Amino acid sequence: MPSSFQEMWAELLPLGRDPGSGGYRRFAWTPADAECRAWFRAQAAARGLACEVDRNGNQWAWLGDPAAGDAVVTGSHLDSVPDGGAFDGPLGVVSAFAALDELRSRGARPSRPVAVVNFGDEEGARFGLACAGSRLAAGVLTPERAAALRDADGVSLPQAMERAGHDAEAIGPDDERLARVGVFVELHVEQGRHLEDTASPVGVASSIWPHGRWRFDFRGEANHAGTTRMGDRHDPMPAFAATVLAARERAAAAGARATFGKLGVLPNGVNAVPGLVRAWLDARAADEDTLGALVGAIERAAREHSAAEGVQVALTRESFTPVVDFAPALRDELVRLLAARRAYEVPVLPTGAGHDAGILAAKVPTAMLFVRNPTGVSHSPAEHAREDDCVAGVEALADVLEGLACR
Amino acid sequence: MPSSFQEMWAELLPLGRDPGSGGYRRFAWTPADAECRAWFRAQAAARGLACEVDRNGNQWAWLGDPAAGDAVVTGSHLDSVPDGGAFDGPLGVVSAFAALDELRSRGARPSRPVAVVNFGDEEGARFGLACAGSRLAAGVLTPERAAALRDADGVSLPQAMERAGHDAEAIGPDDERLARVGVFVELHVEQGRHLEDTASPVGVASSIWPHGRWRFDFRGEANHAGTTRMGDRHDPMPAFAATVLAARERAAAAGARATFGKLGVLPNGVNAVPGLVRAWLDARAADEDTLGALVGAIERAAREHSAAEGVQVALTRESFTPVVDFAPALRDELVRLLAARRAYEVPVLPTGAGHDAGILAAKVPTAMLFVRNPTGVSHSPAEHAREDDCVAGVEALADVLEGLACR
Repeated sequence: MPSSFQEMWAELLPLGRDPGSGGYRRFAWTPADAECRAWFRAQAAARGLACEVDRNGNQWAWLGDPAAGDAVVTGSHLDSVPDGGAFDGPLGVVSAFAALDELRSRGARPSRPVAVVNFGDEEGARFGLACAGSRLAAGVLTPERAAALRDADGVSLPQAMERAGHDAEAIGPDDERLARVGVFVELHVEQGRHLEDTASPVGVASSIWPHGRWRFDFRGEANHAGTTRMGDRHDPMPAFAATVLAARERAAAAGARATFGKLGVLPNGVNAVPGLVRAWLDARAADEDTLGALVGAIERAAREHSAAEGVQVALTRESFTPVVDFAPALRDELVRLLAARRAYEVPVLPTGAGHDAGILAAKVPTAMLFVRNPTGVSHSPAEHAREDDCVAGVEALADVLEGLACR
Repeated sequence: MPSSFQEMWAELLPLGRDPGSGGYRRFAWTPADAECRAWFRAQAAARGLACEVDRNGNQWAWLGDPAAGDAVVTGSHLDSVPDGGAFDGPLGVVSAFAALDELRSRGARPSRPVAVVNFGDEEGARFGLACAGSRLAAGVLTPERAAALRDADGVSLPQAMERAGHDAEAIGPDDERLARVGVFVELHVEQGRHLEDTASPVGVASSIWPHGRWRFDFRGEANHAGTTRMGDRHDPMPAFAATVLAARERAAAAGARATFGKLGVLPNGVNAVPGLVRAWLDARAADEDTLGALVGAIERAAREHSAAEGVQVALTRESFTPVVDFAPALRDELVRLLAARRAYEVPVLPTGAGHDAGILAAKVPTAMLFVRNPTGVSHSPAEHAREDDCVAGVEALADVLEGLACR
């Protein structure tokens, strides 16, 4: 008998967990990632599902014949940000297997192929680009650019795939496989507190905010911290600091988001004025005009403060994802399917978080379900969802799969 | 025949040099450090000096019988800050050997023992505490506290010493050895531009500014960068940023120095609001009252901004070195010895940089010579001193050794 939701959860819980922080460090193509992928294969095998890895390293577990086409696909990812939570990603994969079990226990018989998918490298924690697995499949990340992505040790994405035993020769657009997908539904823990203010454990996504990552290189002159007069310095740290404050103020005023969450300092010595502060801006807004104005204002602030400090600043846009409006007809169908079986209202809400669903939406009809998050905290060991709400998520996903695949 | 100054310099130049930055990464008790220490032993051997390592890992090369006491000791250190320059430390050791050669070529015969010393772990780049070797010897760093010092990989200072082949069981105060030192003179590249504004290649130190290191832990709540509203955040980065700007402003106003040059961010993910920003403040001023007022003002700014951002801040003083006034009689004697032989004025200047000489000054009469630095840049690959000035430094050190040891 396949593992229950609770058993699957308990099996995943120790994999890639940092004993110090209690958070997860399941970075793409590392041993922790390999353990998660082995868990996925075992779950597929326990259910008699055919498991395969596509050319871009994404895992698929098939119920029915993939070649029949028009498949109903659900799933998410198993990798994590540094010290991430247990739910972001895995909840969607565990719920997908559990929803298949629920369909079986209901006696529902799919008339279309159904698959569970685990997309590789969704968080981009190791190579700096989110959703690498789905971007490669959809053709929005080229193999050439993927080969230029490197981790902190200088290992490229294809090299890392090869070292993990995956043939990276064939990475690239996978139109044939995506053509077999009739619809993709991703279940995910909510990463805000919208649902917590409602009586609904589950909601449906309307859109994903446009978002991107910009690298700011503030370059000054390394020097002795004890002997260099304040006025003689070319210190990139105050220029960076003033940019952080400007970003926060502008984002708050625009109802948007701007975060400097990743930093590298050289030489990073206590008694050395830094020569380089490299900082990454993550910025998001409800629409692309607002986002463009926000990033433009932060860039101007960085240039002004750098000029005042006698340092150089260079900006590199490392990624940009336009607004995603999920297919309205599919979205409405999900609301209808849930409303027919469930006693709660089904909120329809946007999100500021990127997802593989946002990448696939350009290629196939795509929808998302969100499961309530009592604190809204995500990308943190404190990320949480109540067990009752997780069970409600599985039931909702089963409703959706039954409605879409068993007609 | 022992290596000339230029030959010694050329031998040291490639050791521990980072090919990317061109700077040095000679951290205590690493392979690069071991190469420098092997170089020291070879120089001692080439001159027939008895080389020994004291209980705290400092290297001594003796001309004459150490047990005779009242020794004239000169030297500096060979380790570096991250991406440090070639001169900070090594110039004092190379010049010490070269000055002994100069004494010999002058036919000067010391009537007191003379030693060249290489103090271990002066920069504190690996374990966070500067002058660890001389502090241990002088008893101002206890073995217990040394055992609590850890590098970024969690290796303690004694463990690192053991792994490098040094018996760390016996680390601790070395009064017997210090009692044999009659006088210590450290030659060092100047780390400011005082001498460059004069016609003098060499100056004598008056004092070392009081200085210290404080660790600021700004603790907030890690969260998702895309979904967490700006107003819902407990983001330590803006609190840190505001503290950086306050520190710079206060230090400039006080004619002092305040630097945030080393940072650690957790989880350090592009799409995660940080949970922790750990930042080290290096602060220095001409006197202890000014320094205390400066650090107090920075601490108040950190607390105010942290409270406004809903984050916690904790301060830890990791080191503090009171003002060092070098022995006035010895300082005056150095000026007199140089003035008798050299055509240039001998400036007497304070420094904002800490040195082993500053630690030893509490135990034995101690002095310092500074060699002109045309840009003042230090703790950087761009650190430089002209060869003529380095030769003038060797001659001046030989004058001092001759005057002190050959009477």
